[in-house]
Amino acid sequence: MLSFRNNALENLISTLSRFPGVGRKTAQRLAVHILKKPEFGAELVQAVERVRQEVHQCRRCFNLAEGEYCQICADEKRDQHQICVVEDVVDLFAVESSQEYRGVYHVLGGVISPLAGVRPGDLKIEELIRRVHSENTAELLLALNPTTEGEATMIYISRLLSDSAVKITRIASGIPLGSNLEYIDAATIGRAIQTRRDL
Amino acid sequence: MLSFRNNALENLISTLSRFPGVGRKTAQRLAVHILKKPEFGAELVQAVERVRQEVHQCRRCFNLAEGEYCQICADEKRDQHQICVVEDVVDLFAVESSQEYRGVYHVLGGVISPLAGVRPGDLKIEELIRRVHSENTAELLLALNPTTEGEATMIYISRLLSDSAVKITRIASGIPLGSNLEYIDAATIGRAIQTRRDL
Repeated sequence: MLSFRNNALENLISTLSRFPGVGRKTAQRLAVHILKKPEFGAELVQAVERVRQEVHQCRRCFNLAEGEYCQICADEKRDQHQICVVEDVVDLFAVESSQEYRGVYHVLGGVISPLAGVRPGDLKIEELIRRVHSENTAELLLALNPTTEGEATMIYISRLLSDSAVKITRIASGIPLGSNLEYIDAATIGRAIQTRRDL
Repeated sequence: MLSFRNNALENLISTLSRFPGVGRKTAQRLAVHILKKPEFGAELVQAVERVRQEVHQCRRCFNLAEGEYCQICADEKRDQHQICVVEDVVDLFAVESSQEYRGVYHVLGGVISPLAGVRPGDLKIEELIRRVHSENTAELLLALNPTTEGEATMIYISRLLSDSAVKITRIASGIPLGSNLEYIDAATIGRAIQTRRDL
């Protein structure tokens, strides 16, 4: 790989490769695109500056927001007594894209992971518990990723609320629609059998 | 997909999705990363601004350059009488990464493609022909992508130079190293057989 040490292009390539999922080769391609389209580079700079100035965290649910509260919290048509707990904003986007959920959210900012040094205090768990109590929440839908850390975090949250009247649910794990049993891992199939439903 | 119409985040996501190979979902992920790491956003803006100011086209070979000439043209250890013709800067990076080539380059900026409306005059072909004559070039190594358009462009260039003494070569097409014949398309295998070498 050609290296452009100590210069502007090398600096841009190494900055771009700090994006999640962007390797050096992709970063090179992105950098060359920026150089080939001067107006694109200018618009990119403007767009980044603008979100840096205008976009903050919703003070209630920690989703991205342009005002004090995010679009979803501010939407009176959403059920304010149903809270969906997600790990990250991208997971909130994923849940929204299903168009199945009409409540509000709470973005934890991660999951408990002793190995990665993430402790409950590093997440918005305390804020969640306070919300559930003060907002008189009817249902808490835990939609964390079904990883070991996600499962542990769901159990941790449900224990903190064991003395509360809130109904705690979790999204189903199982075989993704349109996929083939043959290619699904044994743990997922095992879970799908355990949680089978009457037809 | 959640849409953030008329706001800063939506604007950043749609700007990022104009990068080649970046879809809406990846753009969302990149935008969220920019928002979650304020110092990263600032460094990205600086890095883009810096290349936009400092990086231009080499006036000889049209590679990216910080001065008047690119690092490769300015390097006296490179063979200035051997020119490798590539479609784009990313292809130049790919050839350099092989560490097999010690000559200089000429970046065409595309290939002739009547369907995409790219005509010879849109490329740096005239500049190439002038270089070959004025620089007393010994060898022109055509390293365009072996697509229909790339092949046609190589033939077009070689015809323009048919009255010149320059030796015109092209990089070999064939089976990539480490790959499996079973998975290689028939046209590539056919070409590899046609251009077989004595062992």
